[in-house]
Amino acid sequence: MSGAALSKGPIFFGPFLVTSQVCGRHLFFSLTPFLVRMSPLSFLVFYITPLSFALVNLKPILPGHVLVSPRRCVPRVADLTPAETVDLFLTVRRIGRMVERVFGASSLNIAIQDGLDAGQSVPHVHAHLIPRRGADLDARGGTDAIYSMLDGDEGDLGRIHREMESEEKRATKMTPSNHRRSGFPAVDNDRRVARSEGEMTHEAEMLAREMEKEPED
Amino acid sequence: MSGAALSKGPIFFGPFLVTSQVCGRHLFFSLTPFLVRMSPLSFLVFYITPLSFALVNLKPILPGHVLVSPRRCVPRVADLTPAETVDLFLTVRRIGRMVERVFGASSLNIAIQDGLDAGQSVPHVHAHLIPRRGADLDARGGTDAIYSMLDGDEGDLGRIHREMESEEKRATKMTPSNHRRSGFPAVDNDRRVARSEGEMTHEAEMLAREMEKEPED
Repeated sequence: MSGAALSKGPIFFGPFLVTSQVCGRHLFFSLTPFLVRMSPLSFLVFYITPLSFALVNLKPILPGHVLVSPRRCVPRVADLTPAETVDLFLTVRRIGRMVERVFGASSLNIAIQDGLDAGQSVPHVHAHLIPRRGADLDARGGTDAIYSMLDGDEGDLGRIHREMESEEKRATKMTPSNHRRSGFPAVDNDRRVARSEGEMTHEAEMLAREMEKEPED
Repeated sequence: MSGAALSKGPIFFGPFLVTSQVCGRHLFFSLTPFLVRMSPLSFLVFYITPLSFALVNLKPILPGHVLVSPRRCVPRVADLTPAETVDLFLTVRRIGRMVERVFGASSLNIAIQDGLDAGQSVPHVHAHLIPRRGADLDARGGTDAIYSMLDGDEGDLGRIHREMESEEKRATKMTPSNHRRSGFPAVDNDRRVARSEGEMTHEAEMLAREMEKEPED
């Protein structure tokens, strides 16, 4: 499924408006101040198809950790239409290939917390894609330690909002380390470093360009 | 994608032959001795579509934990054709609905260890589907403790073989507890109780019947 033929219109992740306007395969990142006000989180989104979209993380578990969601805001995979299911997972496969290539990985974790009792935080279907490399978590408990890190921070856009506001207040005294990804983040979410809007925007723009290079199916 | 129109032919999970003959939507469970010899693990499989199949587990992490695989034996999601990807995930969605209903669950974990460095044990794409209920893992570390249990036991059919041979040797002194599912299994795989062939056959037959009740998309 190509991302080329896009319908226009807003996209929400849970209750949060994440896009205002789309063009071609990816977003206009130079949104007008009006649109930015309407959609303060649009910088997170790097790819949109007719029925799905993909966004970067505030606190990636490992470099390249991204999310893929259906455009229609429904909580459960069983709520998706067959067409939405097909589009979502073809998008998961395509973005998975891309992040694995771009982040120099050799494997991929794909995980969906489908419903509250499975650990879902935002009631909007989302697949975690996490590029993996050999021994990347040896110091943190081994290969499968990745899963204990999947505890809901991903979609907490309310927290992203709040943390961004705090970041803005600190902006005048920002040090370079605030802008740099911190290697492999700690297991505990609270110890993972929240990235700046600038860093996330840069990554989303880079991933949007990389998706242009990704061959069609 | 319906399971009704099936091509005949053997199906492998990794190097292991898991089916010999199919009819309608599910297997003939009354295989001839010859076919049983050809396919000693066929009792694990409860659903087959033109491009995918589903099987029960020797040591389910929680009741209803099943696997869904493409019929073609390839290690990575990126190796699948678009048609295989579509069939696999429509099958995941359909079987997810069924196990959630049958096991009285309210949510579902869906996880793919896509490649060796993501924790994959058998080099054949497989999605874990694990029905979840509120507080089902509170005594074992909380909702997300499920992931630490996903450490490769699922597809170790070589181990299934070996354990079944041991079970057979103990068959004459089998107690009822060997045949009963042990509530919520321990976190450590080695403490999880291997189920008997009889129990797995019974579950696979039950799930095959339940898939007959599952509405088409």
